[in-house]
Amino acid sequence: MGCNDKQTTMKTQDAIENIMNRKSVRKYLDKKVEDEKVTTILKAGMAAPSGKNIRPWELIVVTDRAVLDSMAAKLPNAKMLQQAPLAIVVCGNTEKSSYWYVDCSAVTQNILLAAEALGLGAVWTATYPYEDRMQVVDSFMELPAEVQSLCVIPIGYPATPSAPKDKWDETKVHYNKW
Amino acid sequence: MGCNDKQTTMKTQDAIENIMNRKSVRKYLDKKVEDEKVTTILKAGMAAPSGKNIRPWELIVVTDRAVLDSMAAKLPNAKMLQQAPLAIVVCGNTEKSSYWYVDCSAVTQNILLAAEALGLGAVWTATYPYEDRMQVVDSFMELPAEVQSLCVIPIGYPATPSAPKDKWDETKVHYNKW
Repeated sequence: MGCNDKQTTMKTQDAIENIMNRKSVRKYLDKKVEDEKVTTILKAGMAAPSGKNIRPWELIVVTDRAVLDSMAAKLPNAKMLQQAPLAIVVCGNTEKSSYWYVDCSAVTQNILLAAEALGLGAVWTATYPYEDRMQVVDSFMELPAEVQSLCVIPIGYPATPSAPKDKWDETKVHYNKW
Repeated sequence: MGCNDKQTTMKTQDAIENIMNRKSVRKYLDKKVEDEKVTTILKAGMAAPSGKNIRPWELIVVTDRAVLDSMAAKLPNAKMLQQAPLAIVVCGNTEKSSYWYVDCSAVTQNILLAAEALGLGAVWTATYPYEDRMQVVDSFMELPAEVQSLCVIPIGYPATPSAPKDKWDETKVHYNKW
């Protein structure tokens, strides 16, 4: 096949492979993530679907070293923020949607996949539904009363190559009913 | 650039474009979705991350015309099941995880993106957190007591071409704090 014949098939393969290759990356190089890549990631996040197309999300880009380090010290599951050059805090407006955390989970997955596509590594560190973690983020980010956080996503260039987990489990597939 | 020079850049572009091109598709051709594509979609779903790697998801593939039509009749937001050759019901085990619906939202987003990549159309029709809709699915799917549904995803070949919404909104991006 020539270059052009391959295009449709390759597009499909590339997109599927990116989904299959995404992995949680917790160690990063001491290297800035380019602004252009950050913008692409944010756009990917906002391309998520939402119930009734309400789009209750709000995204906070954190690059301030002191803030990243302070949050790392207070969030038991997000120690890797100390190494990360960047984090995105995914938040939702609870007044706009009572199930903001569902829509914001789709946003988060898009962000993780975009990071993978761009050669970056990222990991979903949950704040919701943990009240204590949500309060930490609330305090550092100075969130308005109606806004809550779903997660903090540290992002950076992976320090070491890593393989995705194979999570395929046919016993979890059912046909026509349970 | 030759074929090979393009590969890394194209892989990135293809994956990002797939995220940006995903749209909710509600009208389908009367055409079966190939089993191989269904398997790819299911594998993409299970490639999602989950809290503590618990993987609380369970996926039900529905192709039985009578079941699809009956669910369409009972689910106010899923009338398009009457046209769809296929639906995937995304469920979670509530005993394995108290926030199964967060993990299952990431699964759902992967499924929607895989469908897009494969030239299919799909749409997230929510059951969770609506008790009445969840009961309908519970009843048709004969779910065990500890399993609940997040959504029903009708999938098929799109009847008409459609463009994704542009949801990019810079006012929803904040830097270092709100």
